[in-house]
Amino acid sequence: MRFLLISTLLFIISCNKKENEIQQPQKIPFAIVIHGGAGYISKENMPLEKQKKYKIVLEKALNKGYEIIENGGTAIDAVQNTLMILEDSPLFNAGRGAVYNNQGKNKMDASIMDGKTLNAGAVAGVSNIKNPIQLARLVMDSTKHVLLAGKGAEIFAEQQQLKFENDAYFYTKRQHEYLLKVQKREREIKLQKSISKTDINNSNIQIHTLENSKYGTVGAVALDKAGNIAAATSTGGLTNKKYGRIGDSPIIGAGTYANNKTCGVSCTGTGEYFIRTLAAHEVSNLIQYKKRSAKEAIKEVIHTQINNLGGKGGIIILDKQGNIAWDFNTKGMFRAYKKSTGKNKIAFFEMDTVKLK
Amino acid sequence: MRFLLISTLLFIISCNKKENEIQQPQKIPFAIVIHGGAGYISKENMPLEKQKKYKIVLEKALNKGYEIIENGGTAIDAVQNTLMILEDSPLFNAGRGAVYNNQGKNKMDASIMDGKTLNAGAVAGVSNIKNPIQLARLVMDSTKHVLLAGKGAEIFAEQQQLKFENDAYFYTKRQHEYLLKVQKREREIKLQKSISKTDINNSNIQIHTLENSKYGTVGAVALDKAGNIAAATSTGGLTNKKYGRIGDSPIIGAGTYANNKTCGVSCTGTGEYFIRTLAAHEVSNLIQYKKRSAKEAIKEVIHTQINNLGGKGGIIILDKQGNIAWDFNTKGMFRAYKKSTGKNKIAFFEMDTVKLK
Repeated sequence: MRFLLISTLLFIISCNKKENEIQQPQKIPFAIVIHGGAGYISKENMPLEKQKKYKIVLEKALNKGYEIIENGGTAIDAVQNTLMILEDSPLFNAGRGAVYNNQGKNKMDASIMDGKTLNAGAVAGVSNIKNPIQLARLVMDSTKHVLLAGKGAEIFAEQQQLKFENDAYFYTKRQHEYLLKVQKREREIKLQKSISKTDINNSNIQIHTLENSKYGTVGAVALDKAGNIAAATSTGGLTNKKYGRIGDSPIIGAGTYANNKTCGVSCTGTGEYFIRTLAAHEVSNLIQYKKRSAKEAIKEVIHTQINNLGGKGGIIILDKQGNIAWDFNTKGMFRAYKKSTGKNKIAFFEMDTVKLK
Repeated sequence: MRFLLISTLLFIISCNKKENEIQQPQKIPFAIVIHGGAGYISKENMPLEKQKKYKIVLEKALNKGYEIIENGGTAIDAVQNTLMILEDSPLFNAGRGAVYNNQGKNKMDASIMDGKTLNAGAVAGVSNIKNPIQLARLVMDSTKHVLLAGKGAEIFAEQQQLKFENDAYFYTKRQHEYLLKVQKREREIKLQKSISKTDINNSNIQIHTLENSKYGTVGAVALDKAGNIAAATSTGGLTNKKYGRIGDSPIIGAGTYANNKTCGVSCTGTGEYFIRTLAAHEVSNLIQYKKRSAKEAIKEVIHTQINNLGGKGGIIILDKQGNIAWDFNTKGMFRAYKKSTGKNKIAFFEMDTVKLK
């Protein structure tokens, strides 16, 4: 009799619990994570005033994307609009702050991917486009293509009435001085060494790897209330780049990948290594096929696969459960996230983190 | 005592066996597999005379690559030289026989990957280069870059003293007539439909998918005596392509992938779907992480992943054990292989195979 009573009580409690669950459906988590490039970013070479500047823009971009998904918007809109803010800032190597190529032009790359449909859009080697990520989005939405390059992509942008800016808009003293520095070093190496073509090509990269204190590629991954994931990346590529070099940022599966089954990923660093390892797609497959966690997957790709080849850079990830992770084998990475759980963080250096206000 | 005798005998036999093993080391298998594109290739629309023409060139290319690895050469040399023969033929949509873009130019893409080092080289949107695959190889060997595009890639080719050909060399009546046909159809559709930009872009692809009876991208995968795998792909892309469109052929992990741990892969078809699924890298990961066989892996990618998105095309694969497979969801695919076991095959249509002489 006592047993029956307890059983009945337990049954009633259990029913009530179920009812409560129905009345208060489990909150769908949503979140956004962004980066502003990985590189030789350390407290020593970055005065507080400079840190503040970066913090302001990163927060603005992060909040923009977060606001979109908080208001029921899509992950794809969130990542696009977040990156447009970073592209509009002269602080990052993307859009307005893009580095100069060997001919003193800004040649920009960008890509975007929708994890729901696996639709993707990308542009490579475009000039004078105010927001390359907007153009990548249009490639995704308004064509059946994925990747448009060079002059052809610019013609498409004109037809789509995208905003163009003149060269002066893209002028940043910092990037221009950096180009001159790299080119001076290149001339010195040419004088020193026997001028085999291979040496010249290699030296170009070596200079970059040694001296570039900040890569500054920008990226974002968002998970919206509907459970859709999107990822996007935008960059000016390598300073002093030649021969129409394209890095990983506009390559789906290398610099950018999103798949609702697994995660969204954006990468930054020495692009060639991210292409050869298919870094973003590899991360997703490690989760899907090897049951790795988001954190484990990016750790394996950046610290083992890319590191073993000699590559440097960083990765941000946001998986379908809303788990966020970042990792890098450089000195630092500009990075921030914001989650519907209330958790958020902004960080620049290896060990240091700064709480968002 | 008897036991000791038997043991001693067994020991002697076992020693002899080991000695024999050393004297006759296990033969390292080597092999090459090639394709000349997938599409609407059927017996009905291909007279015997035409079949013979394709057979002759495919055999020549296959034998060239096989000869290289048979003589102890590398897989990477084999795939490059094999593709150069296919590029030199006007029959395929690569090199000499490349299709025309919207402006009546040949804009070619190619990529090559070495499975031993994961080094890779690729070029996109290049004109007047006799052998784009040779240029891709030079990008791999003589720069630290992976992908060079457009005019920049052509400047690099000039510096490397690569062979250029004038427009007349690339003229093929077949491809020119096909361009005019596609453009005529496009004008008709423009007249019929309200001319929204989206419609134009979509119609371009639709025409291609509907009418193109042969895609003609070429690819090769080889496994050499040292156990190294290499893969390469070369194409002229889509007829009437606009806006600097780049397909999957020059994208490492999409159209081409090689990894000694798993396999080498070359793809052909509607490139955008191969980019979105990272087809070549996905095949490799299915083998590495899901323990799929070569045959199972390409079947899953072409018939499930790509097919479900609406893509069409074919894949060839050669794994580290020397297993060869091909698969496609089109009417046919030009394809052939040759193995050191003596096995070989050349086939065009879905069910039909022709023995190599």
